[in-house]
Amino acid sequence: MSKHMQRDLEKLQKSILRMASLVEEAVFQAAQALQTRDTDLADRVIEGDNLIDLLENEVHEECLKILALHQPVAVDLRRISSVLFISTNLERMGDYATAIAERVPGLAKPPLVAIPERLKPMTERTILMVRKALDAFVNSDAATARTVIRLDDEVDADNATIIREIVAEMKRVADHIEPLLSLFSAVRHVERIADHATNISEDVIYLVEGAIVRHHHELLEPQS
Amino acid sequence: MSKHMQRDLEKLQKSILRMASLVEEAVFQAAQALQTRDTDLADRVIEGDNLIDLLENEVHEECLKILALHQPVAVDLRRISSVLFISTNLERMGDYATAIAERVPGLAKPPLVAIPERLKPMTERTILMVRKALDAFVNSDAATARTVIRLDDEVDADNATIIREIVAEMKRVADHIEPLLSLFSAVRHVERIADHATNISEDVIYLVEGAIVRHHHELLEPQS
Repeated sequence: MSKHMQRDLEKLQKSILRMASLVEEAVFQAAQALQTRDTDLADRVIEGDNLIDLLENEVHEECLKILALHQPVAVDLRRISSVLFISTNLERMGDYATAIAERVPGLAKPPLVAIPERLKPMTERTILMVRKALDAFVNSDAATARTVIRLDDEVDADNATIIREIVAEMKRVADHIEPLLSLFSAVRHVERIADHATNISEDVIYLVEGAIVRHHHELLEPQS
Repeated sequence: MSKHMQRDLEKLQKSILRMASLVEEAVFQAAQALQTRDTDLADRVIEGDNLIDLLENEVHEECLKILALHQPVAVDLRRISSVLFISTNLERMGDYATAIAERVPGLAKPPLVAIPERLKPMTERTILMVRKALDAFVNSDAATARTVIRLDDEVDADNATIIREIVAEMKRVADHIEPLLSLFSAVRHVERIADHATNISEDVIYLVEGAIVRHHHELLEPQS
């Protein structure tokens, strides 16, 4: 690998990690804002999404530049393709964090509805999934990626329970339907963030185990 | 431009158009299934989403291959970057078509709730937006792209009206809350599809007018 390509790949790694840490923070803050009905914090999440979008563009431009300048092959090409895929998933997580934040004002004004008890563990699990998915990517760690995929089942179960509670409460108090719809949307968005952490983890497994397959091919094929 | 690159770009154009026509069809069928509570049609939309995902992968691989093999610059590089962007938006539209289809069984079983009158014009407008956004891309037509962006305001207005009707109906008949939640989710997904048609249109405007800006730069800069 040329020194220039090495330098560009390191720069790309820095950009994607910066994007990842912003998205992780956005998800964390959106969950906080939802839990505490903090509209100021929600506004900050919404404002912050622009920077995430800009970083996604930057990551894409850097990927295209590396591909055009250095014509990477095999593992490096696959790595860049992964960065593109992961940046897209991160951007979508950022969108969902914003969508959660947008539901906070609807929950902060009267009538105040109870936040389901299971929402806190659900969002904590989701944030853990996001963190682990990114760790798995950084360390090319398929085992950690697999724990993320297992956690998604728990988030799906949390989601089903909470939605049932929301429906029961809607039936009980008609005047609570509007804030409960905000809550319903927010919970669905949390669940979608967990899905994207799962997408990233699946890609990490493919990246790691694909690399192994390629490696074996090299061993099997005659050297030219 | 080399003959090989020309050939690869034509292949890429075919792949993205095939993906576009599948997504257009999926959105159309999902809207049909929703309107007529047709669970068989909904199942076909859900099954079809795999092929859309595969085509997105194919488009991405083709883009990476062209970038690595031919090192395109300027307008061609920007075109490939657009194809990547548009394929991602198409895939998301496909996901939303599937999400709409997944809500159909909840609307097909008793108690049957009325489908709001304005849903049909809303989905028709959304399908028109999808079609026009893709036409704008194919023909590099910024004027058509701008009509898509204007249509999005109408879809947002449809969305607000329908959501208000759904909330009123939820308050009126508590037993209808569950199917109405399915309807609520489906309507939100239609609105998101329109957002992605808007994204594509914005990119087309950037592609077309960015190219003009670049062209002017070439005229202004001394020839090397």
